[in-house]
Amino acid sequence: MTFSRYGSPKDVELAFYEAFQGADLDAMRAVWDDGDDIVCVHPMGPKLVGYEAVMKSWSDILGSGAQLSFRVDNIQIMADGGISVHCVHENITQGRHGELRGLVIATNVYRATDNGWRMVLHHGSPGAVETAQAQRQHVVH
Amino acid sequence: MTFSRYGSPKDVELAFYEAFQGADLDAMRAVWDDGDDIVCVHPMGPKLVGYEAVMKSWSDILGSGAQLSFRVDNIQIMADGGISVHCVHENITQGRHGELRGLVIATNVYRATDNGWRMVLHHGSPGAVETAQAQRQHVVH
Repeated sequence: MTFSRYGSPKDVELAFYEAFQGADLDAMRAVWDDGDDIVCVHPMGPKLVGYEAVMKSWSDILGSGAQLSFRVDNIQIMADGGISVHCVHENITQGRHGELRGLVIATNVYRATDNGWRMVLHHGSPGAVETAQAQRQHVVH
Repeated sequence: MTFSRYGSPKDVELAFYEAFQGADLDAMRAVWDDGDDIVCVHPMGPKLVGYEAVMKSWSDILGSGAQLSFRVDNIQIMADGGISVHCVHENITQGRHGELRGLVIATNVYRATDNGWRMVLHHGSPGAVETAQAQRQHVVH
C-alpha cells in the first residue's frame, strides 16, 4: 500500500484523525515517524515510547471495533523550523448513531523528516470534566 | 523582583518545577511566555488558553498550601529552531514527610522569545494508572 508524503503538519493531522476514524492501522503506521523517541499517551494511559510500543497500542485500539467519529476544533499551534505543536479538542462520537459523546484534549507534535512531516507525539487526556470543573469553580469564586 | 533570562529550554524546565515546588507565583509568572496562545492542561482539567487564564490557575494551585516535591525523569525531547518539546514523568510527593506519592505525565513546550526561552504549553495527565493498566494488559494478552 502506498501513502503520501505529508507536505505539512496539517496534512499529517488530517491523516491521523482519518486513520483513527477509519480504524486503519496501515494508515496509522504511515502517519507516525518510525523513531525510537516517539511518544504516545492515550487518555488515562501510561507514556508509551518508541515505534513498536506505540503501534502495539494503536493495533489494540483500532482493532477494538469501536466506531469513533472525530470533529477537531479549538486548535492552538506553536511551530518553528521542523517542529509543529498543535493542542486541540477532539469532539468524539461513538456508535452507529453517535450515542456516546466525549471530549479529549490532545497535544499533537509533528516533525519534518526525510519522508515529509510525521507525527512524533500524541498526548490525550479526558476533557469531559471541563463543564463540571468550570461549574465548581463558579461556585467557589 | 528580577528574574533571569532563561538561556535554554532546560533552564526554563528547571525554573518551572522550582516555582511549582516552592509555590512561588512570581517565579511561575516569569517562567511562562505572556502570549494569548499559551496553553495549560492540569491533570483531569480543561484546556486553559492565554496568559490570564493560565496564571489564574497557577494562583489557585500554588495558593492551595499543598507541599509538593518533584523528581522529573523519563524525558523525551523533540526540538528544532525556537521550539522544544519535552515529555516527562513528574514523580510527585506531597506532605511534610512525603506521605502521598503520584505520577503525572507531562508534555512541556518551550519557545525562544525576545526575552529568552519561555514555557508556552504544559499538558499534564494522571500517570498513576500505569501499573494497573499494565497489569490489566498482562491479563488480557
